Amino acid sequence: MPVYTCTTVQSVLSADTKADLAAEITRIHSMINHVPGTYVNVVFHELDPDEVYTDGIPAQPLLINGWVRSGHPEAQSSQLVAEIAAAASRVTGIPAKRVLIVIQNSPAHFAIEGGRVLPAPGEEEAWLHAQKDAD
Amino acid sequence: MPVYTCTTVQSVLSADTKADLAAEITRIHSMINHVPGTYVNVVFHELDPDEVYTDGIPAQPLLINGWVRSGHPEAQSSQLVAEIAAAASRVTGIPAKRVLIVIQNSPAHFAIEGGRVLPAPGEEEAWLHAQKDAD
Amino acid sequence: MPVYTCTTVQSVLSADTKADLAAEITRIHSMINHVPGTYVNVVFHELDPDEVYTDGIPAQPLLINGWVRSGHPEAQSSQLVAEIAAAASRVTGIPAKRVLIVIQNSPAHFAIEGGRVLPAPGEEEAWLHAQKDAD
Repeated sequence: MPVYTCTTVQSVLSADTKADLAAEITRIHSMINHVPGTYVNVVFHELDPDEVYTDGIPAQPLLINGWVRSGHPEAQSSQLVAEIAAAASRVTGIPAKRVLIVIQNSPAHFAIEGGRVLPAPGEEEAWLHAQKDAD
Repeated sequence: MPVYTCTTVQSVLSADTKADLAAEITRIHSMINHVPGTYVNVVFHELDPDEVYTDGIPAQPLLINGWVRSGHPEAQSSQLVAEIAAAASRVTGIPAKRVLIVIQNSPAHFAIEGGRVLPAPGEEEAWLHAQKDAD
Repeated sequence: MPVYTCTTVQSVLSADTKADLAAEITRIHSMINHVPGTYVNVVFHELDPDEVYTDGIPAQPLLINGWVRSGHPEAQSSQLVAEIAAAASRVTGIPAKRVLIVIQNSPAHFAIEGGRVLPAPGEEEAWLHAQKDAD
């Protein structure tokens, strides 16, 4: 269901670090938002040095944008963004001051996966069950 | 007005398939949301195999993120996401279980095209007419 | 705090033009939304010619997507999008009819930078002050 998009300059993250960060984001999202890891997507955009600017000059931030379904309890969203931010620095070694995490959302019924409209937060179990029955 | 961003791993989509998917998304959006095709943008991000993960392991999903203006009737948005999802599998041959469509939105007045603030849903005709008069 | 993502076809923008556009977006955002330039990120996605379509055919639009915190006064958001749009054409020479600016947002507390939850609009000064004290 969610998509996390990580944007950095090329060569900042090794192949291993990307895999580790993807695994850690997946673990955290899965735990906090009650979604099996098989529904968590993480992609990386690794841009040229002249394609990334902070304060109008070439820079090397780590920008992570997550899309999640609207309607998760406030405390859950706060925990999610905090844990993703902590993991980003812990896994990559990039200091927190160069890391920006942004969570965006839209209603679950504006998203389709596996041919089915996504469940609203709290209704995951019935949705997943129906999927399993169809397999 | 809208922008559809399709993200996949490199070589998953041929040049022809990309063109076909762009054409089909354009046709569907134009029909359902009453926007001339000349205002529909579709872009593709084709990433390296080690830049795309599902469940924390390298994977080949097709992720389509659409941005549209807020305020379209609910039924229209549901039809839009359903038809885009069906088209994505039909055109690319990628099974529905690997396809995720997400529609995001923001108010029309937070967007500018051709130097003019976008019209709210339902006010496209007057907006387009004024544009034509200016050309 | 904000992230501006500019998408074009490769070779449309020179290295100098990218730097100039990043600087100008940073200046405008900083001035209107009261955020120091050091918190403004601008990234460029320069895609292959067969990865960008308008009206279902290969095209060369300039698509700029900005993420900002929710809650800025309406007039401020309108001014922001208008000035970014004007700057985009002025700096790049790309005519307004091929330029689309979209501003998206989510609550400040859904974003973390420098290890701290972002301040709501209007509360930047105290937030920045606390950061300075910590440095």
